[in-house]
Amino acid sequence: MSPTIDLNSDLGESFGAWRMGDDEAMLGIVSSANVACGFHAGDPAGILRTLRAAAGRHVSVGAHVGYRDLAGFGRRAMDPSSEELVGDVIYQIGALQGMARAAGTRVTYVKPHGALYNTIAQGGRQAADVVAAIRAVDPALPLVALAGSPLVGEARAAGLQVVAEAFADRAYAPDGQLVPRSRPSAVIHDADAVARRMLMLVHEGAVETADGTRVPVDAQTICVHGDNPAAVAIAAALRSALEAEGVAIRPFAPA
Amino acid sequence: MSPTIDLNSDLGESFGAWRMGDDEAMLGIVSSANVACGFHAGDPAGILRTLRAAAGRHVSVGAHVGYRDLAGFGRRAMDPSSEELVGDVIYQIGALQGMARAAGTRVTYVKPHGALYNTIAQGGRQAADVVAAIRAVDPALPLVALAGSPLVGEARAAGLQVVAEAFADRAYAPDGQLVPRSRPSAVIHDADAVARRMLMLVHEGAVETADGTRVPVDAQTICVHGDNPAAVAIAAALRSALEAEGVAIRPFAPA
Amino acid sequence: MSPTIDLNSDLGESFGAWRMGDDEAMLGIVSSANVACGFHAGDPAGILRTLRAAAGRHVSVGAHVGYRDLAGFGRRAMDPSSEELVGDVIYQIGALQGMARAAGTRVTYVKPHGALYNTIAQGGRQAADVVAAIRAVDPALPLVALAGSPLVGEARAAGLQVVAEAFADRAYAPDGQLVPRSRPSAVIHDADAVARRMLMLVHEGAVETADGTRVPVDAQTICVHGDNPAAVAIAAALRSALEAEGVAIRPFAPA
Amino acid sequence: MSPTIDLNSDLGESFGAWRMGDDEAMLGIVSSANVACGFHAGDPAGILRTLRAAAGRHVSVGAHVGYRDLAGFGRRAMDPSSEELVGDVIYQIGALQGMARAAGTRVTYVKPHGALYNTIAQGGRQAADVVAAIRAVDPALPLVALAGSPLVGEARAAGLQVVAEAFADRAYAPDGQLVPRSRPSAVIHDADAVARRMLMLVHEGAVETADGTRVPVDAQTICVHGDNPAAVAIAAALRSALEAEGVAIRPFAPA
Repeated sequence: MSPTIDLNSDLGESFGAWRMGDDEAMLGIVSSANVACGFHAGDPAGILRTLRAAAGRHVSVGAHVGYRDLAGFGRRAMDPSSEELVGDVIYQIGALQGMARAAGTRVTYVKPHGALYNTIAQGGRQAADVVAAIRAVDPALPLVALAGSPLVGEARAAGLQVVAEAFADRAYAPDGQLVPRSRPSAVIHDADAVARRMLMLVHEGAVETADGTRVPVDAQTICVHGDNPAAVAIAAALRSALEAEGVAIRPFAPA
Repeated sequence: MSPTIDLNSDLGESFGAWRMGDDEAMLGIVSSANVACGFHAGDPAGILRTLRAAAGRHVSVGAHVGYRDLAGFGRRAMDPSSEELVGDVIYQIGALQGMARAAGTRVTYVKPHGALYNTIAQGGRQAADVVAAIRAVDPALPLVALAGSPLVGEARAAGLQVVAEAFADRAYAPDGQLVPRSRPSAVIHDADAVARRMLMLVHEGAVETADGTRVPVDAQTICVHGDNPAAVAIAAALRSALEAEGVAIRPFAPA
Repeated sequence: MSPTIDLNSDLGESFGAWRMGDDEAMLGIVSSANVACGFHAGDPAGILRTLRAAAGRHVSVGAHVGYRDLAGFGRRAMDPSSEELVGDVIYQIGALQGMARAAGTRVTYVKPHGALYNTIAQGGRQAADVVAAIRAVDPALPLVALAGSPLVGEARAAGLQVVAEAFADRAYAPDGQLVPRSRPSAVIHDADAVARRMLMLVHEGAVETADGTRVPVDAQTICVHGDNPAAVAIAAALRSALEAEGVAIRPFAPA
Repeated sequence: MSPTIDLNSDLGESFGAWRMGDDEAMLGIVSSANVACGFHAGDPAGILRTLRAAAGRHVSVGAHVGYRDLAGFGRRAMDPSSEELVGDVIYQIGALQGMARAAGTRVTYVKPHGALYNTIAQGGRQAADVVAAIRAVDPALPLVALAGSPLVGEARAAGLQVVAEAFADRAYAPDGQLVPRSRPSAVIHDADAVARRMLMLVHEGAVETADGTRVPVDAQTICVHGDNPAAVAIAAALRSALEAEGVAIRPFAPA
């Protein structure tokens, strides 16, 4: 049986008159679409277009929930109360579920965005709030979480199904953590290197670190970016390389 | 068999630090709660509190969808495109459905709010958009529409179930239309008069107009207001008067 | 003495992570920049960048005031009360004045945006509100208004200085009005035709209409667009053509 | 010569259909009004009403700048970039200056609100951003800062005029810091105790702490609250008590 992996990317991030990303192109590359829910990005009409396109391509849809911060694109650390954060996450999942239904598809997972993703990766209070929110809507909805982060264990302990995520174009440190974006070597821009690393991830469950050692990374989905033409090209090359090596690209949670 | 009627009111209209209305009091009076969905009013945490209270009181919940206009409380006429309006309505219904599920209840109808309510009562393009949005989410969701308005027929012709609505404290013109708010006699402030008129509505399917004639009004739900203590008192007196006359207060669509 | 004309364009329309237009390129072409004020577009940090660039290029700055509608980019007709509209316009002008001061320049005129521009061009209540708002902040601030529209006379009668505006790439009807955008011939995409028409405007105070006749257009500023590379190229070609014919490009209100 | 002190309070915090506070009552009590600028609270029309009332009462006006967070009322810690925070503060000050001019008054100081106030009281990066923003608009605008906080010295070192602020109803610890709100004794609800303490502040430059000792507090303005009837009554009683003892209530920066 051939190995399989999921490729996911952030979509539906336009807002009103402002465009972002090339959703059409990315829907031809990924198997799972993290669709913005309106709090950090995404207006309903645009979200609906993306959902319809995803449905037409049989790409799975996840709720890409974020902080309520359009001006900051959800990338700024915030400190909502538990009641606020639980409410905001339930609201966003529900909104996307309704729109997905109208578009002929359904929400099959939840992936937090931006500063919320980073904050809860470390576990703690906001992580517990997000877990509680997902469970309140549907305890069977999987959560996508950073592979190797404290969140993976905490969410599983709370009864959620967790899908661990690796990043195609991010360098890993010897301890299995991502090299911080503030470091010049944080992002890998070479398409061949990206593909080679992700093939190792799929086949061996490990990634080569910056210093040439190997670190185990247990991931069921790979995040690729599509916010500029170069990123789209790297993602497309990754898919081709994976398929050329016999790896099937499949959503971890089919629609 | 005793006659029954539904009483509905707008709830969940607080936003963040700002309070509006007395949801607790109104949930003891009405059988259906039109809950704000975040576009004209309502933040997720507050909406969730209202939904939990409604669930606890066995009050039915409707999605009170409005224009995207917090600064204007959804009371200002707007001209969104069909794609925008359809998307905005689907999004709001979906968000409330998700929150209702988390609160242990469900959305059993849709009632447009404010300027959207008034605009689509006359039928036409935006009315068709709202109908299309409801059908896209769930064709079985009833729409609450102004009794006697063109919307009633248009929405039914489009396949929706329509629940016609009367207003407890609004004067009716001899043609069955509401006396415009710009007229001094538009709103009835006397609790006894309100109760007497609504008893006639329930028992005879008619309302006494300003000039003393009777006009038929075919309504399955009565809207009462709760945005100030006097309004709450009038609503409570109406419920008491109806029950004293043997009228049962029941939601048209039980949760 | 050589003839002069002002070229103006909409700038500062990015919002947070979303880019729009090529402000740097346009600041090399126009003499006046209509800078978004945050209600239909523009976040403070981005507005400030645009203002600093305008100051460095000695391009005049106008407050591009719009409806409070980020999701609709200020392009949707709205019906704010007079109190709301007056307040919204004063607020936006004040905000831009403060930011212009911080950027080493100043606001020298006001130009309404999008649906507000179109609505008040016909005069009437909202036009009077905008005029009152400008007068409340600074009665000496000129208003940019559509050449030939009722607003020109109404605003002058109310004591404002009015600068009439022509559109470089819009076709004119024989009555001097713009051909509606709904018509296929509304927008002129040929750079030579745009330049030829605007040279006639500058030299003869007239524009050739779609049917080949001439209609007088009395304008002191010409609006050019910069929202896509083709538009930027047409604007640059227009400036070159004007200068080649000895027309000086100068702001009507120097900073 | 009789001693004088300034009383300040937060005003203009309504938003659209939502009311907050009793601005009319507070304008009869305070000498300085911290007026919301639209980012954490305040819509332009309501702000303008408050400014006109302040002008009519000869109450000084300060720009009450906050984080861009209507849903959280500016009370949630946020982490904007320096470019964003500088821009947001300049924008808010400018907007209020424009509205103040339209209302026949002017902005004579800046006071940060809520979480921004608390964060910058400790000095550091965001404090430097706020100081830079004020200096960019008008280096002569005083900043109101928590008496005894690191911000007082840092802002003065950066060249700003600083007005130190005490809180009428907050308990002080022996080190001169406010007792955290999480502690039951943090807020003083007894009007007589509030008045007695503030008289000591004015006459002796000291406040009695929770354990009965005295701690020096060097403040030129006293913050009073008006968000509920009890708070308004305490503020009114404080003013009466101060005046009865010959203390004149005067703005530190007259309009």
